[in-house]
Amino acid sequence: MADLWTIAAAQKALREGDVSSVDLVSAAYRVIEKDEGEGARTFVRTFKNAAITQAAASDAMRKMHVPQGPLAGIPISVKDLFDVSGEPTTAGSKALAGVAKPAQQDALVLARLRAAGAIFLGHTNMTEFAYSGLGINPHFGTPLNPWDRLTGRVPGGSSSGAAMSVVENMAIAAIGSDTGGSVRIPAAFNRLYGFKPSFGRHPLDGVFPLGRSLDTVGPIGNSMACCRLIDHLMAGLPVPDADIRPLAGFRFGILETIALDGLDVEVAGGFVRALETISKAGARLERIKVDAINRFTDIGHMGSLVGPEAYHAHRAFLMEYGDSVDPRVRSRIEAAAHIAAADYIEMLDLQKDMQERTHMATRNYDAILMPTVAVVPPEIKPLLASDELYFETNLKVLRNTSIGNLLGRPSASIPVGAEGSVPVGLMIMGEYNQDANVLNIAESIDFCLKS
Amino acid sequence: MADLWTIAAAQKALREGDVSSVDLVSAAYRVIEKDEGEGARTFVRTFKNAAITQAAASDAMRKMHVPQGPLAGIPISVKDLFDVSGEPTTAGSKALAGVAKPAQQDALVLARLRAAGAIFLGHTNMTEFAYSGLGINPHFGTPLNPWDRLTGRVPGGSSSGAAMSVVENMAIAAIGSDTGGSVRIPAAFNRLYGFKPSFGRHPLDGVFPLGRSLDTVGPIGNSMACCRLIDHLMAGLPVPDADIRPLAGFRFGILETIALDGLDVEVAGGFVRALETISKAGARLERIKVDAINRFTDIGHMGSLVGPEAYHAHRAFLMEYGDSVDPRVRSRIEAAAHIAAADYIEMLDLQKDMQERTHMATRNYDAILMPTVAVVPPEIKPLLASDELYFETNLKVLRNTSIGNLLGRPSASIPVGAEGSVPVGLMIMGEYNQDANVLNIAESIDFCLKS
Repeated sequence: MADLWTIAAAQKALREGDVSSVDLVSAAYRVIEKDEGEGARTFVRTFKNAAITQAAASDAMRKMHVPQGPLAGIPISVKDLFDVSGEPTTAGSKALAGVAKPAQQDALVLARLRAAGAIFLGHTNMTEFAYSGLGINPHFGTPLNPWDRLTGRVPGGSSSGAAMSVVENMAIAAIGSDTGGSVRIPAAFNRLYGFKPSFGRHPLDGVFPLGRSLDTVGPIGNSMACCRLIDHLMAGLPVPDADIRPLAGFRFGILETIALDGLDVEVAGGFVRALETISKAGARLERIKVDAINRFTDIGHMGSLVGPEAYHAHRAFLMEYGDSVDPRVRSRIEAAAHIAAADYIEMLDLQKDMQERTHMATRNYDAILMPTVAVVPPEIKPLLASDELYFETNLKVLRNTSIGNLLGRPSASIPVGAEGSVPVGLMIMGEYNQDANVLNIAESIDFCLKS
Repeated sequence: MADLWTIAAAQKALREGDVSSVDLVSAAYRVIEKDEGEGARTFVRTFKNAAITQAAASDAMRKMHVPQGPLAGIPISVKDLFDVSGEPTTAGSKALAGVAKPAQQDALVLARLRAAGAIFLGHTNMTEFAYSGLGINPHFGTPLNPWDRLTGRVPGGSSSGAAMSVVENMAIAAIGSDTGGSVRIPAAFNRLYGFKPSFGRHPLDGVFPLGRSLDTVGPIGNSMACCRLIDHLMAGLPVPDADIRPLAGFRFGILETIALDGLDVEVAGGFVRALETISKAGARLERIKVDAINRFTDIGHMGSLVGPEAYHAHRAFLMEYGDSVDPRVRSRIEAAAHIAAADYIEMLDLQKDMQERTHMATRNYDAILMPTVAVVPPEIKPLLASDELYFETNLKVLRNTSIGNLLGRPSASIPVGAEGSVPVGLMIMGEYNQDANVLNIAESIDFCLKS
């Protein structure tokens, strides 16, 4: 496997003339189009003509020293729920593919990235409607996790193709969305970097909705710096310089409530070893219990927030085209049809209470740490065979990440352990609206773990 | 009937030594306690000892020239859904009266008024849980509208006691709440002034909830200046001087959609005569249709926003004490139990759409005018006899006012026609968050109508 590009490395190579944007884009398409590769299951459609044309234009401008943005000439993949001007948005759904019209304009976050010079290679595969953390898609196929292709394990979802495009060198970075962990789970399952921002940080215009009180968009890349750059550009903010600090003096809370229950031994091992390194570097680590996090379970018992929100968003479509939708996605959405308005309001109140009380419990920590996912990437075959196992595994995979969604708080995932080892993610969660902080702390921890 | 006090007149009389605060407060209690009066149906409880003590203290301070706030010594009534420190809050409910504990502190808006020197006389009667615009209360009795006591007509609600306390000289001003018209309807039905602010203008801490996406609090008084003063104090804002202007140059929209349907002839007459005066004063009047206002009906067909919100707020209480609740209030709340979460979300979207599109249609007008209520105060007896008539009349009474609640926009009601004539209100609705503007325009129109 070729070394993976970071955006910074690609920018440097472009600047120094070691590579052209056409080289980068063409190399990506070569991998995508390989017969024996995962390209067909990673992208649901590509924008090759536009991408090559844009790359050549960027190269020409670079040659003439015309100023370009910080993503100039960088090939990026886009999850199939972001509008791309002139292309349909189909959310990993064959049924939608039959009726979706080409978008009139880019999703606003993509327009900002395009203005910064990004080249969009294509729409990546995903769990249909983004409604599962496993990344299984019966319509377009499920990309195989590269960690253990022999066994056949899930890539993580719902942004399955997003992570796959980066880890397989089909794109330098990927844009995904995260309603319950859909950026961080596939990032963790593929030893990549992922970032879910604070709720409301980015505009969702032109983004296919799932759960309106939880939906966020975020990047997957080969470094936290890649995530930081893309996140700030999507937010329309100036990009600050990196601020990597020694960990001495930092105070981190290790969330005991829920997040450490029933970890796979490989996950526990990777997590503990990472904490040892962080502790040796001088950071203070404290195990903390946060009772308010149990609201999570109360909300679960009442259904979920995402259920009625997704049902509201998609019921008209399901009425007409439901038979062509993944039955496991459809049944989960339709199960929310009977959730009462009063219960939905109550769940919103529980969420608010959970946010306020958790803030009081965690505000004195620089960040909260936990394993991104409690388990290693599960085997695909048994999940296809049993609905019960599928739903149970899905809940377990989403458990830790969805805490950040309910809290509306920024949360990054970085890989731990040596390269090539079992994929385990360390999740760094900050306070609401402290996104730049979380990105810097994640970058600092990553620097420490790698040194 | 004694002349009614405005706050400004009372302040002047206090300042000049023509009256003391103890005089004002004692006079109010004399009316409240009159056997043949409406006091027993206007107040559900009084705070006499505290009020007299406070009045005497205020008089003493005035004598010694100790600085006091703009409401120093002014007796004010408070609807029975605002927490008053040391008193129970019972929302016009006998069932609640049995279990409610004394409040630990004043509702935040009351705390601000108390800090400005206001003297709270007691909790006023209301439709139980504030869930009707008629003002009928089977537990504490229904105060009779003074316009036609012989026939026996509703006072308007839900802030029935609030309006009654002012019009009967039992308080100089009243604090009410308005979720669908509960301040403006009783104001209009009693030839008083009422103001419903923009949604979110005042904190609702310590206010008994009805519909969380519509609830507002507002004053009823004998002038728009009274309303302006109280509104600004409750919002924690400095009180600007009056800004009464000639009407020449103003441009008002007369809302045709829904608001002019099926008016009682007395209402149509009063409304048209007021418009003639306004037009003669040089204001431009234009009849406007706003299609988006029909969203109102779409939301009505799906149930209502207030239904599931009230059901969420009160279902636990109704489960235990429902048998002691007004069956017409209970049945309306419980009818919302089966509204689905997805339909609630859809209604929120319809509301937002209605707000945005109405803003585009009305933003070039200084204000929108319509009759506050389509009918004159209905007779009580037939309403008690027929559920069908009760619900139908209630919807008609609430119709015009609730447009402002759905839009979240500030809206004032002023009386039109000569004193002692049939009570008809003119409603002046402004753009969202333009509260001070609406108050000034209402004051200017009132000045014009009276000159």
